[in-house]
Amino acid sequence: MDKNFLLTTKTAQKLFHKTAKNLPIFDYHCHLDPKEIAENKKFSNLTEIWLGGDHYKWRQMRAAGFSEAIITGKADDYDKFLAWAETLANSIGNPLYHWTHLELQRYFGIYEPLTLQTAPEIWNKANRILQTEELSIKGIFEKFNIYAVGTTDDPADSLEWHRQIAAGTAKIGKIKTKVLPSFRPDNALTIEKSTFSAYIRRLESVCNKKILSVTDLTAALKDRLDFFIENGCKVSDHAFDFPPFAFLHSDSTKNLKALNDVFKKALNNEPVSDLEAEAYKTYLLAELANAYSQRNIAMQLHLSVIRDTNKNAFKALGANTGFDAVHDYQITEKLANLLSYMSRESSLPKTILYSLNPKDYYPLATIAGAFQGDSAETEKLPANKKTTAGKIQLGAAWWFLDNKDGIRDQLKTLGNLGMLSSFIGMLTDSRSFLSYPRHEYFRRILCGLIGEWVENGEFPNNMEKLSEIVKNISFYNAKAYFENQAT
Amino acid sequence: MDKNFLLTTKTAQKLFHKTAKNLPIFDYHCHLDPKEIAENKKFSNLTEIWLGGDHYKWRQMRAAGFSEAIITGKADDYDKFLAWAETLANSIGNPLYHWTHLELQRYFGIYEPLTLQTAPEIWNKANRILQTEELSIKGIFEKFNIYAVGTTDDPADSLEWHRQIAAGTAKIGKIKTKVLPSFRPDNALTIEKSTFSAYIRRLESVCNKKILSVTDLTAALKDRLDFFIENGCKVSDHAFDFPPFAFLHSDSTKNLKALNDVFKKALNNEPVSDLEAEAYKTYLLAELANAYSQRNIAMQLHLSVIRDTNKNAFKALGANTGFDAVHDYQITEKLANLLSYMSRESSLPKTILYSLNPKDYYPLATIAGAFQGDSAETEKLPANKKTTAGKIQLGAAWWFLDNKDGIRDQLKTLGNLGMLSSFIGMLTDSRSFLSYPRHEYFRRILCGLIGEWVENGEFPNNMEKLSEIVKNISFYNAKAYFENQAT
Amino acid sequence: MDKNFLLTTKTAQKLFHKTAKNLPIFDYHCHLDPKEIAENKKFSNLTEIWLGGDHYKWRQMRAAGFSEAIITGKADDYDKFLAWAETLANSIGNPLYHWTHLELQRYFGIYEPLTLQTAPEIWNKANRILQTEELSIKGIFEKFNIYAVGTTDDPADSLEWHRQIAAGTAKIGKIKTKVLPSFRPDNALTIEKSTFSAYIRRLESVCNKKILSVTDLTAALKDRLDFFIENGCKVSDHAFDFPPFAFLHSDSTKNLKALNDVFKKALNNEPVSDLEAEAYKTYLLAELANAYSQRNIAMQLHLSVIRDTNKNAFKALGANTGFDAVHDYQITEKLANLLSYMSRESSLPKTILYSLNPKDYYPLATIAGAFQGDSAETEKLPANKKTTAGKIQLGAAWWFLDNKDGIRDQLKTLGNLGMLSSFIGMLTDSRSFLSYPRHEYFRRILCGLIGEWVENGEFPNNMEKLSEIVKNISFYNAKAYFENQAT
Repeated sequence: MDKNFLLTTKTAQKLFHKTAKNLPIFDYHCHLDPKEIAENKKFSNLTEIWLGGDHYKWRQMRAAGFSEAIITGKADDYDKFLAWAETLANSIGNPLYHWTHLELQRYFGIYEPLTLQTAPEIWNKANRILQTEELSIKGIFEKFNIYAVGTTDDPADSLEWHRQIAAGTAKIGKIKTKVLPSFRPDNALTIEKSTFSAYIRRLESVCNKKILSVTDLTAALKDRLDFFIENGCKVSDHAFDFPPFAFLHSDSTKNLKALNDVFKKALNNEPVSDLEAEAYKTYLLAELANAYSQRNIAMQLHLSVIRDTNKNAFKALGANTGFDAVHDYQITEKLANLLSYMSRESSLPKTILYSLNPKDYYPLATIAGAFQGDSAETEKLPANKKTTAGKIQLGAAWWFLDNKDGIRDQLKTLGNLGMLSSFIGMLTDSRSFLSYPRHEYFRRILCGLIGEWVENGEFPNNMEKLSEIVKNISFYNAKAYFENQAT
Repeated sequence: MDKNFLLTTKTAQKLFHKTAKNLPIFDYHCHLDPKEIAENKKFSNLTEIWLGGDHYKWRQMRAAGFSEAIITGKADDYDKFLAWAETLANSIGNPLYHWTHLELQRYFGIYEPLTLQTAPEIWNKANRILQTEELSIKGIFEKFNIYAVGTTDDPADSLEWHRQIAAGTAKIGKIKTKVLPSFRPDNALTIEKSTFSAYIRRLESVCNKKILSVTDLTAALKDRLDFFIENGCKVSDHAFDFPPFAFLHSDSTKNLKALNDVFKKALNNEPVSDLEAEAYKTYLLAELANAYSQRNIAMQLHLSVIRDTNKNAFKALGANTGFDAVHDYQITEKLANLLSYMSRESSLPKTILYSLNPKDYYPLATIAGAFQGDSAETEKLPANKKTTAGKIQLGAAWWFLDNKDGIRDQLKTLGNLGMLSSFIGMLTDSRSFLSYPRHEYFRRILCGLIGEWVENGEFPNNMEKLSEIVKNISFYNAKAYFENQAT
Repeated sequence: MDKNFLLTTKTAQKLFHKTAKNLPIFDYHCHLDPKEIAENKKFSNLTEIWLGGDHYKWRQMRAAGFSEAIITGKADDYDKFLAWAETLANSIGNPLYHWTHLELQRYFGIYEPLTLQTAPEIWNKANRILQTEELSIKGIFEKFNIYAVGTTDDPADSLEWHRQIAAGTAKIGKIKTKVLPSFRPDNALTIEKSTFSAYIRRLESVCNKKILSVTDLTAALKDRLDFFIENGCKVSDHAFDFPPFAFLHSDSTKNLKALNDVFKKALNNEPVSDLEAEAYKTYLLAELANAYSQRNIAMQLHLSVIRDTNKNAFKALGANTGFDAVHDYQITEKLANLLSYMSRESSLPKTILYSLNPKDYYPLATIAGAFQGDSAETEKLPANKKTTAGKIQLGAAWWFLDNKDGIRDQLKTLGNLGMLSSFIGMLTDSRSFLSYPRHEYFRRILCGLIGEWVENGEFPNNMEKLSEIVKNISFYNAKAYFENQAT
């Protein structure tokens, strides 16, 4: 993993070192804690920052046979680190191997592989550096040239930390990095969950309004969305096992009436049926899509995950602890119908379609292609005007797909089926401040792929054009897409 | 994109230049208009021939953010061309980039990349050449050594243009290229469509017979099939979202009786249920398969498309305008049962199985392998006789899959799971007379893949054998398959 | 196919020749006949040993157009061999091409490609060698350094041949190779089959106990499992179209009562519904899983096959004659629920998840990752103890996937999503004693892939570590996994 890591051609090397490497980062989707940012948190040791919340690593340690006690349990931090070192040294072919070593190189200047043998020295050196200002969050943001981060926030959130950061009144002080909230109303959509009614009560108290119907809820969410937008929000986010598309009645008035009955049942903690839940989600998501479209906010749809599969482990450790997997639903028909339904009155917002299952890429990319541009409003836009390029995006390789093969597959699929040069590029999706080298990883793979194409004669060796494409995918497309600028 | 484009090894270069390049083309499935052929149409400019009906390009222009006005609307032809040039220059990784430049090279002798800068000069030069006899349809057929083209025709079609062309009485005069109709009875199968009853009335008038039952319809279609065969038809074609396999009764007499009731409902424009439609299709397709088998006509099944997903756009622009996508149905069980049902009385014809979803390749190729040869008639054929090699074909990479990765994937899957050397090879599936370089594209990729195998030691470097394989896949297998010759 | 076949880098060559090549083979899943082993069978000619039961080859010959008479019929052995030679010479891109030539090289010292021209000489030479002791089963086991083979056996089997072999009293005499039975109770699970009641009666007579209920059957199967384990059994095996997960009642007592009624119906040869059959399988498989777990026996689940698709051919030739295909069910939800259900009381055994459909790899590998380690028993195991590394395995590339692309895909998927270095590696799954070079094929591909990673800078070039990884995947992981040793 030297300076030309993954850069297999001269063209790739040139593109990466001269263009991609030093561009800012727009990390538009992550799970960082805004409170930690506001407080400019420092981390006491590698175990805290690496293993504190990273279920990718936990899974790998479980596969290596380590006990849960040393993974998420009460074992000593140094012992946990040694277990991780041993695990990693065996993780051939896994992206964690690359991420971890890029992190050691870029954050700590450590260039030797982490093994049980090198672990003690690395532990000491890295922990020392973690105490310096350079490794404070502010230091990290500066070091990695972070233009913006998009956190993931519930509509009921007060956004107090975001506001403090924006105002420069937080402990972290004035920073150049924009810390933008993202609107993730999953709790308002998962009507089938036992926590639903409590959540609606929480939202009522935040909004200081009664929420007695789906219509009330829609209005409350739009209020919160406006509040989010006032505080910098550029994008919403939704997670679904599969795209919802169902109705309780073909007549829309009757459908809404029936949904209000379902809503009341749920508020009374009575169970709702699968169909009722899906119809509720369809309605509410379409209303929100309309709101996003009117406010020119992008909508992220994350699909094809099955969560908390291991019930015993979930009971013991809770959500997001490494027991999720790739789902394999049929998604084409519902997704295509959903987007078509949303676009019925030109209310389809900018949309980013992610799936955790690589089998969904061809369906997703071709559905995206069918909803690009202003095609729903033929001839309305004059011939000399353009709409958002890549309005419907095939989302970046996500989670389990965020590896060299998965990233190449996403890039090639988008290239083959659509307009790769309009791609808004990578995000970390991470809970850790050490994850920014994933952008470097992505950019290396992107430059590597383009280099191959060029040296195989599949695209002209015009460095100016290539450089423009790499710049845009690495940073400027995302900036233009989320900030509604012309590219 | 020089002369060794995609030919990454010496073996590949030798195979392509000495063997593949100059072979005739049997373009057994396309959507060319026989009237345009008969009239030996010339095209006024690049926009007409390139952008007149090519929804691949329209989709790409929409993804680039162009307005519909300049894509399918009333904008000026030159402005449309400029919009296409700008789109294309950004289409890195897309097969349109390769197709377009192969077309510029082979039809117009233009070797510089199309960009906004080069567009004016290319527009003038290409339009001039378009007026020459070399770029008339006759000229194109000769230039590209087109042995045969298989158009796509409705059973009710009079085939007047095919007959004129065959007789040499059309404006195009005597040509060597065979212009063969293909039998595509989709309109007779889609009983759920509102246009069904009108279509049956049209068929009645063409056949000059009443069609009051499914049995009448079957007879009428067989008459039309015979008429098609008299006029050169070698192959039928069917499009399905998913393979139909359903029955209204387990008893076949009762099933037919029930289907006749369904048929009457449809003729009266009453709605039919999903099950009724599927059962109707199952019956009629099996009857047609039997007819194909008796006449030794091949059957093409095109699967896993979802059409007209964007309802607004469909309303504005109609079908085949770029709003289709890859479907993701489960197809294995129904398809296997359908083929088994067809083969119950040795009536399974030569069959070509296409899917738009790459996830279907492993199922399709293995189902194909289970219906090869005369296995349904064990021991009937003497030991020293052979049947059609590759009787059941895994169809070529189709539509969205017609790109370098998709083609390689199809070739490798077929190689791994079956008899690649019996593959009948490529088709354009195109609406444009400029698409013949797609055969070159395919042959380059084929030679490239074989070259890799040979140079990796995965197949002997026996140029005679390799050359035979390349020849057969490029042309002779298709000829033998459709013309029922020994290979 | 020389000595560096598939070894595209220096690293790969070193790893294969210095480490992988001479390691013993633990062929933990095959379909060899223990009687043939006990009798130290010799084969009269290449047709008998190659074409006697190999439906891979039969399918390929059918695809080549040969008549069934010369494939599985009564034609002369030499003519069959010639048909196979002709088929093979055209099988570019097919793993049979590589397997066959590795077999000719390793068993017979024949290095020229098999074609119609070379066939006569090869026939004579190979048949001569087949008569030598070196090509007896004992000779083959010694030549290929076979540490153990796991046959596939019905619970009702007497294991008499296994016992004779183990005792050294069989004709083959004392051999070093362990011939281990595997417990495959499919006949006890497929309650929907017409042969079910007869099978239960057979089991009754073997156990010398009445089996009147599901509970009786469970007890009988556990008795047989203990008997198998006494005779060396290390692993069970189950084949399912899709993972069963269904219940007739949410209350477990009522569910068992209902299943007993279903069981009685089946014993009376009355039909059971799909739901009843699935609920029965769910219950019985979970009970067996519990038994495997208590006895530390691994459980193999083989998924996503559709069998006997060509009904005519099945009627003529029976099962396992080349008419199976890749299925495309949705498996994630049922499989995740099933494993979670099994792990409810820590009764999830070591499990190997195979699928015949490559689209299942991402779901399978991530589900595997969610059930690793002792996560179901958080904090029960002390921090300094480890459980089985790779307790839940993504099974090796199986059947139609057992080709270079399929093997690489499985290795890369496992690398990306889990702990490749804990992979238990390859198996032949074969009915033939000539198949051991498939381990060599796998090891070459493994070394090839690792060599690429290392030379691309994706893993350190530390030959000691690399060699350890290759050794473990080639042999020692399987040994440790099945013999419950520490790695």
